[in-house]
Amino acid sequence: MKKYIVEFIGTFFLVLAVCMAGSKAGDMAPVAIGATLMVMIFAGGHVSGGHYNPAVTLAVFIRGKCNATDLIFYWVAQIVGGVIAGLLAANYFNYFAVATSPEVPIKALVAELIGTFALAYVVLNVATATKNAGNSFYGLAIGFTVTAMAYTLGPVSMGAFNPAVAIGAGAFGLFAWGTIWVYLVGCLLGGALAGVVYKFVIKPDEA
Amino acid sequence: MKKYIVEFIGTFFLVLAVCMAGSKAGDMAPVAIGATLMVMIFAGGHVSGGHYNPAVTLAVFIRGKCNATDLIFYWVAQIVGGVIAGLLAANYFNYFAVATSPEVPIKALVAELIGTFALAYVVLNVATATKNAGNSFYGLAIGFTVTAMAYTLGPVSMGAFNPAVAIGAGAFGLFAWGTIWVYLVGCLLGGALAGVVYKFVIKPDEA
Amino acid sequence: MKKYIVEFIGTFFLVLAVCMAGSKAGDMAPVAIGATLMVMIFAGGHVSGGHYNPAVTLAVFIRGKCNATDLIFYWVAQIVGGVIAGLLAANYFNYFAVATSPEVPIKALVAELIGTFALAYVVLNVATATKNAGNSFYGLAIGFTVTAMAYTLGPVSMGAFNPAVAIGAGAFGLFAWGTIWVYLVGCLLGGALAGVVYKFVIKPDEA
Amino acid sequence: MKKYIVEFIGTFFLVLAVCMAGSKAGDMAPVAIGATLMVMIFAGGHVSGGHYNPAVTLAVFIRGKCNATDLIFYWVAQIVGGVIAGLLAANYFNYFAVATSPEVPIKALVAELIGTFALAYVVLNVATATKNAGNSFYGLAIGFTVTAMAYTLGPVSMGAFNPAVAIGAGAFGLFAWGTIWVYLVGCLLGGALAGVVYKFVIKPDEA
Repeated sequence: MKKYIVEFIGTFFLVLAVCMAGSKAGDMAPVAIGATLMVMIFAGGHVSGGHYNPAVTLAVFIRGKCNATDLIFYWVAQIVGGVIAGLLAANYFNYFAVATSPEVPIKALVAELIGTFALAYVVLNVATATKNAGNSFYGLAIGFTVTAMAYTLGPVSMGAFNPAVAIGAGAFGLFAWGTIWVYLVGCLLGGALAGVVYKFVIKPDEA
Repeated sequence: MKKYIVEFIGTFFLVLAVCMAGSKAGDMAPVAIGATLMVMIFAGGHVSGGHYNPAVTLAVFIRGKCNATDLIFYWVAQIVGGVIAGLLAANYFNYFAVATSPEVPIKALVAELIGTFALAYVVLNVATATKNAGNSFYGLAIGFTVTAMAYTLGPVSMGAFNPAVAIGAGAFGLFAWGTIWVYLVGCLLGGALAGVVYKFVIKPDEA
Repeated sequence: MKKYIVEFIGTFFLVLAVCMAGSKAGDMAPVAIGATLMVMIFAGGHVSGGHYNPAVTLAVFIRGKCNATDLIFYWVAQIVGGVIAGLLAANYFNYFAVATSPEVPIKALVAELIGTFALAYVVLNVATATKNAGNSFYGLAIGFTVTAMAYTLGPVSMGAFNPAVAIGAGAFGLFAWGTIWVYLVGCLLGGALAGVVYKFVIKPDEA
Repeated sequence: MKKYIVEFIGTFFLVLAVCMAGSKAGDMAPVAIGATLMVMIFAGGHVSGGHYNPAVTLAVFIRGKCNATDLIFYWVAQIVGGVIAGLLAANYFNYFAVATSPEVPIKALVAELIGTFALAYVVLNVATATKNAGNSFYGLAIGFTVTAMAYTLGPVSMGAFNPAVAIGAGAFGLFAWGTIWVYLVGCLLGGALAGVVYKFVIKPDEA
């Protein structure tokens, strides 16, 4: 049970940062968002693994380090945490966003796929590879992948790389509901691809 | 005794950064302030635990890793360090601030509660959980929680997340004394909530 | 084989960040690029060493920790990864760059030599010295060397410090092909110099 | 001998960043400079301790972890490295600076004393305390102390916190020679104070 609470708390703060720092931190927003993810991973990693992202949970599931029950409950906890954060930012703190769709949906989908692949690829390597057991850099590596990819691909797709972020930012009013499918499909494909690449190419010798 | 000196030194530098970098570092101020907290935690953690924040000390007290005597003396050392830094910034370095109150006090209180909860939740997990013993990331995680939350919630409450920061910035002249209660109540409630959540939900099995 | 795939993936993302964040992230571009390198090193270091840079591979070869076969295949994987990223940024994501040559080629060559020396010097010390075995900082140190040198020497040479970055940014359209030799010569000399300094001065006692 | 070469290399790059990034990196200059110090400490720490700063070497000497011969040769290597970097930036890369004196010399001296105290205090705790042996954060902590103090105290004193930086930036043409004494006195006093506080208050029980 406490795994799900930790996933809820971490995703809540991640989406709160996306909505609020994303609205008002300007050029520093990717640093604020990546730092939020980093600190929540360092805080919660020892309990839940610190995913805070359905696409990451899918990648870890494919890689074989998460069972089907946890997959479902992690997804629920992540999405609920993200939606509550989005609603809080919009309706209590009165942050305002204009609902935005990507200019070219298919290119945004490819950008989300590429960025989420990077994120899940980093997660699998730094947090599940035997050779990296006990390291102190996993949160820094994962959090700053989001920072790096947000600067790199954000102008194309707005840079979610995370279905719970897309849905939470939809509840906030920033991501238009009509193109949310771009993020769900792109992010889950990117996570799944990372899981497959890790399992069959990079580390076929690790269970 | 040296624990209290370390808490005094760390809080002095943290509040100096809040007052001086907060006045002149513009968009980079949250980075400067979070970095100051990070380096003081890495420097002093092995002596005092590196709290530099009465709400964090309260959370650690509730979690059972700090006794009542230390709670009081830590608070005194933290507040004295913060006030001296605020007075030095204003009266010796002649930095100037217009005393400011949050627009909507109750929303600022909620923002401070949420941000301080994040901070104390990260502290308890990265610095007191058995599974994380001996890690090299605790200062990075805690310092950048303040950076992240300052970008996220700063526009609502000015982002203290720390009663000693609020009082020190009051002595500096930035936080209006009339609404200092917002910070004292919000931060201590946030720290206490983190202590309760950690003790009874996340890690009930750790003493 | 999987070493080459990891070098391909890492260099792909590094050059994608150079082309896309380099075009649109303004003053934060060096942070985005250095962070990309950092996360790819943390992710792939345990498989390939995480070079993503022909000049670094040359330095590691001179230092004696990489054989001639790997030198060649690493170079191929890095350059192919960089070129594909550059073409993707230009032709699929439609990022646009004006082909640019350094103002004074010989000074750019010296700047690239100095910056690449710093980078390879850091790599050899943090990732191959016996005394630093098992550390958790290697990716942070190497990635942020690029960030630091891009701010320091970027105005002189545009800051590649990496032949695969220069060629990939050439394919993207940013680096003029007529002066690519500046980067190939400067970066490889810088890497070689670091290899020699490490092998004969700093650590002659380590094989 | 190689200890002195490492001190020369590290201080060369630190002062190069101060002169060149300090001239053109705007608000990000403190990040560029702190990152340069961080990476050079991670690279050279295992050989020389990674001081790159006469005031830090003085603090380590007072604390009893550096002998008188090394104190002198470290100072020479650091100052020579800094001066060569300053001359290279000015005369080869043609960066230009207007020689500047602090507005109120005594306040700049106090600011340098405070900032250098913070820096040397962090160094002694993270790099020489027995309880912190084997950590992976020392470079991050020390490098970002300079970043943090540059944002905090830079507007008062221009933020050297290092006599070799002051002299190197004097050779570059940025720091007016007539007020270099401010930095020499302020920084050495700050380093000495940190050495005394560490030796007699914080850790009197460690040799």
